Amino acid sequence: MYQRTITVASRGRGTLEISREVAAAVRESGVATGLCHVFCHHTSASLILCENADPTVRRDLEAFMARLVPDGDRLFDHTDEGPDDMPAHVRAILTSSSLTIPVTSGALALGTWQGVYLWEHRRAGHARRVTITVQGA
Amino acid sequence: MYQRTITVASRGRGTLEISREVAAAVRESGVATGLCHVFCHHTSASLILCENADPTVRRDLEAFMARLVPDGDRLFDHTDEGPDDMPAHVRAILTSSSLTIPVTSGALALGTWQGVYLWEHRRAGHARRVTITVQGA
Amino acid sequence: MYQRTITVASRGRGTLEISREVAAAVRESGVATGLCHVFCHHTSASLILCENADPTVRRDLEAFMARLVPDGDRLFDHTDEGPDDMPAHVRAILTSSSLTIPVTSGALALGTWQGVYLWEHRRAGHARRVTITVQGA
Repeated sequence: MYQRTITVASRGRGTLEISREVAAAVRESGVATGLCHVFCHHTSASLILCENADPTVRRDLEAFMARLVPDGDRLFDHTDEGPDDMPAHVRAILTSSSLTIPVTSGALALGTWQGVYLWEHRRAGHARRVTITVQGA
Repeated sequence: MYQRTITVASRGRGTLEISREVAAAVRESGVATGLCHVFCHHTSASLILCENADPTVRRDLEAFMARLVPDGDRLFDHTDEGPDDMPAHVRAILTSSSLTIPVTSGALALGTWQGVYLWEHRRAGHARRVTITVQGA
Repeated sequence: MYQRTITVASRGRGTLEISREVAAAVRESGVATGLCHVFCHHTSASLILCENADPTVRRDLEAFMARLVPDGDRLFDHTDEGPDDMPAHVRAILTSSSLTIPVTSGALALGTWQGVYLWEHRRAGHARRVTITVQGA
């Protein structure tokens, strides 16, 4: 049971790839067969597995979310921290706070086109804490 | 490997915090470093990690879902149990049946503003079964 | 720690039940109390727990997604593989790449109406790799 917490510095709304950091934790754990769990300790950022080849996929994803959960929506009362506050919470809940990925032959068993991304949903940059737990034999 | 099933009595559509029950299971498990998994055995209720300080966040979340997946939508054919039947299934799938949270130093390692909530998506109250599994060393 | 990878042959957009395959892996693992993790190694197919009694639930779910993330949406730039390319990525992210389900008394502890489904989001059929990991005692 290996566990470490890293801090990811976001530069405002958008996705940041952390596949390398997660794969490194798996190697350090020495686990051959098992599971790797990645957890974001925040309610306005989330984690996704996304296509990692063409950057327009992540641009389109951002455009989709901006249309589905627009900043400044009159529907929302929770606006203390600005027009992107409540949309950030909704985006986080529609995606996920955590990912669990198989570990096979000592490596993170992602598909060919899968990358691990932290998705910052606030307009401002934040220091996001992410805990990686690796278990197995 | 510690496991227990609890029943959460919902009072109709809305969120119910169960962080205390989940944290208690972690303490009972005696696990110092590991993972806590929470699972909802139903297809019309779900689990979310949500901001736990301002109740308007959960009211806004409910308002967002009511607009995105409205009760009585003419799109739906599965209406045997009423206008909230199919919307409840869609809401459950857009959120999640389960959560996995790190256990660190013998405690549930939630972020400062993260609470664990059962989200009842039906208008009527239900007894919802939730299984908590804690593993680690 | 038991792990196996299966291939699910989709026949184009739609849901395919794989509860039987997942339950069989749990039995083969010999685990009595623990967790079963199911992972889809692709970014345009996903996994859901869905009501398993009335097939109209899955038809309605498909109709909902087709309206929420329509093929050929002018919003999207990533269209190399056709009008269903980017919508498939968005659908996968709004649902989930993986599921974790309790194992209790040597069996998959699904609720009465919960089935495990692979959801193919592309119009064409694909061979989808799914890894099942079972852990516990």
